[in-house]
Amino acid sequence: MKKLITLLLLLSVFVPTQTYAQANADSLIIRKLFEESLGNGKSYEWLRELTTKIGGRLSGSANAAKAVVWGKNLMEQQGFDRVFLQDVMVPHWVRGAKEEAYILNGKQKISVPLVALGSSVATPKKGITAEVIEVQNFLELRALGKEKCQGKIIFFNRPMDAKKINTFEAYGGAGDQRRSGANEAAKMGAVGAIVRSLSSTLNDYPHTGSMNYGTGVALIPAAAISTNAAELLSKTLKENPQTQFFFKQNCETLADEPSHNVVGEIKGSEKPDEIIVVGGHLDSWDLAQGAHDDGTGIVQSLEVLRLFKTLGIRPKHTIRVVFFMNEENGVKGGQKYAELAKQNNEKHLFALESDEGGFTPRGFGIQGAKPEQLSHIQKFSKLLTPYGLTDIDKGSGGVDITPLAPQGVVLIGFKPDAHRYFEYHHTAIDTFDKVNQRELEMGAASMAALIYLLDKDMF
Amino acid sequence: MKKLITLLLLLSVFVPTQTYAQANADSLIIRKLFEESLGNGKSYEWLRELTTKIGGRLSGSANAAKAVVWGKNLMEQQGFDRVFLQDVMVPHWVRGAKEEAYILNGKQKISVPLVALGSSVATPKKGITAEVIEVQNFLELRALGKEKCQGKIIFFNRPMDAKKINTFEAYGGAGDQRRSGANEAAKMGAVGAIVRSLSSTLNDYPHTGSMNYGTGVALIPAAAISTNAAELLSKTLKENPQTQFFFKQNCETLADEPSHNVVGEIKGSEKPDEIIVVGGHLDSWDLAQGAHDDGTGIVQSLEVLRLFKTLGIRPKHTIRVVFFMNEENGVKGGQKYAELAKQNNEKHLFALESDEGGFTPRGFGIQGAKPEQLSHIQKFSKLLTPYGLTDIDKGSGGVDITPLAPQGVVLIGFKPDAHRYFEYHHTAIDTFDKVNQRELEMGAASMAALIYLLDKDMF
Repeated sequence: MKKLITLLLLLSVFVPTQTYAQANADSLIIRKLFEESLGNGKSYEWLRELTTKIGGRLSGSANAAKAVVWGKNLMEQQGFDRVFLQDVMVPHWVRGAKEEAYILNGKQKISVPLVALGSSVATPKKGITAEVIEVQNFLELRALGKEKCQGKIIFFNRPMDAKKINTFEAYGGAGDQRRSGANEAAKMGAVGAIVRSLSSTLNDYPHTGSMNYGTGVALIPAAAISTNAAELLSKTLKENPQTQFFFKQNCETLADEPSHNVVGEIKGSEKPDEIIVVGGHLDSWDLAQGAHDDGTGIVQSLEVLRLFKTLGIRPKHTIRVVFFMNEENGVKGGQKYAELAKQNNEKHLFALESDEGGFTPRGFGIQGAKPEQLSHIQKFSKLLTPYGLTDIDKGSGGVDITPLAPQGVVLIGFKPDAHRYFEYHHTAIDTFDKVNQRELEMGAASMAALIYLLDKDMF
Repeated sequence: MKKLITLLLLLSVFVPTQTYAQANADSLIIRKLFEESLGNGKSYEWLRELTTKIGGRLSGSANAAKAVVWGKNLMEQQGFDRVFLQDVMVPHWVRGAKEEAYILNGKQKISVPLVALGSSVATPKKGITAEVIEVQNFLELRALGKEKCQGKIIFFNRPMDAKKINTFEAYGGAGDQRRSGANEAAKMGAVGAIVRSLSSTLNDYPHTGSMNYGTGVALIPAAAISTNAAELLSKTLKENPQTQFFFKQNCETLADEPSHNVVGEIKGSEKPDEIIVVGGHLDSWDLAQGAHDDGTGIVQSLEVLRLFKTLGIRPKHTIRVVFFMNEENGVKGGQKYAELAKQNNEKHLFALESDEGGFTPRGFGIQGAKPEQLSHIQKFSKLLTPYGLTDIDKGSGGVDITPLAPQGVVLIGFKPDAHRYFEYHHTAIDTFDKVNQRELEMGAASMAALIYLLDKDMF
């Protein structure tokens, strides 16, 4: 044993790359990161504050402004080397009075849960009443021809595919209906578009989300109905194709508002001009508290830096936590961050985003890495597997950090378990009580462990 | 499709060992198991029935008898080759009227949530009122000496260690207090034992569970208080060591009752006399609906056989689903099953149990396998990793199948994500709504995939 230790010591002097002894030391520090997060973590109480004291915080709203103040104060309390705001103009869309919607089947009038999609225009004050055409996709819509669609409401009813293991893939496979459904429907002369909620389950909570209008087409109102309502409407239409639908929504796009990204950093001890970013987005949809989307990413990112401070880990490179503004409907914060990074000649090495919920960590998705960089990161597996981080592979980084890609930054997406995410995503039930404390804290520690390894063992 | 089947048949004739083509064919079948479970699975609706129509089903209760009938009927509806009951006598402990408990601090009387532990005796009708001695463990208790403990209530307050990654390890590390606390306290002359709930979180739900008395010591009442109550009591004792505690419980052990294991099987096409078991336990504690413990294991095990039937997978060996009775307070069903297996000269190859909740699957724990058997099973990893089953290693099989160990059966425990389990375990909130449909269905398919591989590719 003594011989082995001597050998290891010799190796650690003469071998500059990862050695057995080094891996052991890293393993101890990673263990401490997890123990501190699970034993004395702050992320859960921070999340309670953000979600239950402030709540939903759509860009441009008073709550979003409160969240900026909250975030800056919290960072300042951590004793970071620098805390600052970045100014950014953001869209300001408001929902207005609660929506109303009915299925009108002959004399039957059945109320259904409906929410306006973000950026949509309102209906006329008296609402829209029209016959409904159900389609599964844009091809089917186009094949109908304009005459059939004129004056109708188009009902996009293709579900997220439950058979897919990866719920993000299922979400991606159905997302065009929400994003572009109104635009496609307007091209065919329709007067409104309703979309089956992008949900992995059947329930009564409609999911909002962003949508875009094209140029040169009419701006028709777009809304999502709950999955249960979509099932009911589809069934009713089969029984009576003359079924009508009524909806009324009161949303409005106001003038852009000034807002902020919130940034805090611990200066690097060796290369302070080289930056590693960890972040999430501070804004959320207005329907609920923005807990899993993306309160959890915010508090986990802040916890990464707190863990470093608390455990006395002095990073070689500057570690920066960023609370991005406006991921949900514009990505203006992410764009501004990248723009300023370029303008200020900042060298960013990595950016890690947590924006897939605060569930049990499974791994990381790596985007924009050279093959040797990817395999270098994958070598961390041995140290991360004991914590369930078994999925480290190519993948998407995150919406807010994507604008950094052209600067050659390696983008990393934190990947938690994804089976529950699309039950809550963009709905009224994305609330604090849906977040499990241990799962959240495991995630924060996982992110800290990866940042620790990236900082320490750069390629 | 027909060609594919022919090809598969040819392959299965000419290539006895695992080949690339074979792995590909297996991979397709595993994919189908997951797609069927996620797309058309029955486990979730079965669980809804068991938990919300029957509910809590402690051994010997009317509900447990109902669950046996429900289970047998359900198996018969599946068109299995054989469905039968195994008779077994089980303990019959009843909680009686709801417990009452108070912290008595001078003139303050604070009501706290308390539940009797399973098998405990009642308090006298007027309850027990006594001063409280808080200890962290048995060593500390013994060091106090009998004089200090005489006539007191001993309060075991060592929490589950939040810093442990594996919550089952944390549970194991605190479990002696619940199982043997009363016995140890009685040895010291105490009149009652109260235990901090074995919970991974702070809340107001006390966790029941089994306890045992020793021989030759007084049978003193044993109960668990919620973790919040434990924190409060500990704080109060620090302020006022003369604080008293009152509790009254009305539980009783009645005469043993006849009950049953419920068994269904698909006969093996090649070796019908060699058996692979998959199961969970049908009984649950009385406080709630027994959803994660162990309704999920029951419906997942049944779903394994349904998936085989529905997809037309004819196993080589007999696959048997077993709903074990009485895991919670006696394991009489598990013991009876093993006893009958021996008596009937049945050859059991593997037994797989799901009794760690219906959460996202992570892997399997293998017990009693020879090294070459373990490494053979671990070779399935490549086929199972795409479904998140990355943790296939030595581990514990399950309480109900443990009695099969002396017959040389390889025991396998299904290992789901464990971060939430000990919030619900043995409490009033172990209810249907805590189970996520996708997570449950992923688990059922994972179990089916492993059984498929074990059956097909035996060592």
